[in-house]
Amino acid sequence: MSPLPGTDCAGAVACKTVLASSVANVYTSEIKKSIEDLGRKPKLVGFLANADPAARMYAEWTGKTCVEIGFMFELREVDKEELEDYIVLANEDDDVDGIMIYFPVFGNRQDQYLQQVVSKEKDVEGLSHIYIQNLYHNVRYLDDAKTQKSILPCTPLALVKILEYLGVYNMILPYGNRLYGKTITIVNRSEIVGRPLAALLANDGAVVYSFDIDSVQKFTRGEGIRLRSHRVSDVEVKLEDIALVSDVIITGVPSENYKFQTHYIKDGAVCINFSTTKNFSPDVKTKSSLYVPSVGKVTVTMLMRNLLRLITNKSSRKLEPN
Amino acid sequence: MSPLPGTDCAGAVACKTVLASSVANVYTSEIKKSIEDLGRKPKLVGFLANADPAARMYAEWTGKTCVEIGFMFELREVDKEELEDYIVLANEDDDVDGIMIYFPVFGNRQDQYLQQVVSKEKDVEGLSHIYIQNLYHNVRYLDDAKTQKSILPCTPLALVKILEYLGVYNMILPYGNRLYGKTITIVNRSEIVGRPLAALLANDGAVVYSFDIDSVQKFTRGEGIRLRSHRVSDVEVKLEDIALVSDVIITGVPSENYKFQTHYIKDGAVCINFSTTKNFSPDVKTKSSLYVPSVGKVTVTMLMRNLLRLITNKSSRKLEPN
Repeated sequence: MSPLPGTDCAGAVACKTVLASSVANVYTSEIKKSIEDLGRKPKLVGFLANADPAARMYAEWTGKTCVEIGFMFELREVDKEELEDYIVLANEDDDVDGIMIYFPVFGNRQDQYLQQVVSKEKDVEGLSHIYIQNLYHNVRYLDDAKTQKSILPCTPLALVKILEYLGVYNMILPYGNRLYGKTITIVNRSEIVGRPLAALLANDGAVVYSFDIDSVQKFTRGEGIRLRSHRVSDVEVKLEDIALVSDVIITGVPSENYKFQTHYIKDGAVCINFSTTKNFSPDVKTKSSLYVPSVGKVTVTMLMRNLLRLITNKSSRKLEPN
Repeated sequence: MSPLPGTDCAGAVACKTVLASSVANVYTSEIKKSIEDLGRKPKLVGFLANADPAARMYAEWTGKTCVEIGFMFELREVDKEELEDYIVLANEDDDVDGIMIYFPVFGNRQDQYLQQVVSKEKDVEGLSHIYIQNLYHNVRYLDDAKTQKSILPCTPLALVKILEYLGVYNMILPYGNRLYGKTITIVNRSEIVGRPLAALLANDGAVVYSFDIDSVQKFTRGEGIRLRSHRVSDVEVKLEDIALVSDVIITGVPSENYKFQTHYIKDGAVCINFSTTKNFSPDVKTKSSLYVPSVGKVTVTMLMRNLLRLITNKSSRKLEPN
């Protein structure tokens, strides 16, 4: 007899909980090998200009993880009014390979300004405008010779890697088309995660419904006017209707009170939460086939992977004829 | 007998209302002369991706003004989902000298993304990250040879030109120090106007108090850690106390309901409103010596001036040895 819907009977259901650490481990050995080949410890500098204990804990945790894998990590605590000058100094410092900022700093649009002050050559988070623009335009390289890869923002990239790990990406399909036939719901359309993620998944062939507080957008692969990239259109649909036909549901709502309704989930759907709060109820397992409760460990792994890519890009630039 | 405070008796007071058109006219002839020297009509493309009748009116008004002065202006109305592709096309089109977008498009952070898609070589509004960063760091040129001037954002630049016109800039003092001794209150700290304006005025020697909805910051000229630029600190002061010692009060609150209290204004202060709504009450003239009710016409003049500067910068780049 199948379990009653809505009851928490994880023992009786097939749902498998996949921890971010399992996915992260796949990349850890690759990263360690790259550091070994490089012959030196790459240096990441994190800037903390914020008295929030949660931000400090996150900073210390990323630092600890980086050091464990084999990087040098330096946490620089500075006054928020001096942060910009310190970023510029780090941009110009040859000993610094990568830079990240622990946001929020001012908690308003000035934070986006500061994000862009980080040199794109040291932006491990992949948040420089050119990287995001390349992502939307499905441009994979920074140079015509295709020697320097564009950097993808860490969390969207982590979610792609998780979907690969979970087998949602069908490796039999040709590259760039491996999500063909998949319907994906994303509850979050931030400029940092939700919107770039929707574009990435649509560029790989999925039909993506992107929900934010006041609208729904549908992302599909399209040709654009002349650029090879996804298409976006406003749609009027209900979350429950879309969720019930979605193969994957990804949530990122930063609120303790938000819970994705379990009865909206299609039987066997893949459910992934990237919010730091738990967006799914414990009974998600009565519906879902694969459930990933958090993604942070994969994100920090992608941060390290990006740092190594920045170093490779730098070597490629040095080899370029001027 | 002096007029009773708070009464509207413009006839009995010395306050002079200065219209933006008077300031704009100073630059119009200079701009016409530059177009003549150039020997062709520069082309500005404006993008409208928004059904708001007010945005359309503003677009048509800027277009009309540009054409009157001697520019070509083309308003391109596009779907907001296709705007990015159209901007990229205009970036690559040699017939287009300058590009501007009529915001809001999406009305969220995606608008800031779109703003950065405009090539800095065609950004007449001076909102590209590099221009704003140069402004904050008091960097005036784009190149070491100092042949290409950095572009200043239109509205902050318009306010500087208005302050010069009104004699607030003391031309006897050395360049870069001409606001020395002045205290200025700014009610608005947007990333587009209020914050860059505070930095510009502080870089010229003023002490600037910047008010937004939840904090007050003091901008003064400082040396920074190693960059020649202003200093910012959080301060706990009341608007009325600061306003009463301010030589200049600049407001930009986009609300019909907001009124700057006339009894907060020091006798003889210069009052300038850059909001599209009237932030000062009619009795501002009982206190103020010079009152500028709106700045739009100077802003559009600065837009045209920036367009010419972009063309000059392009010629300088062509002369550069590679």
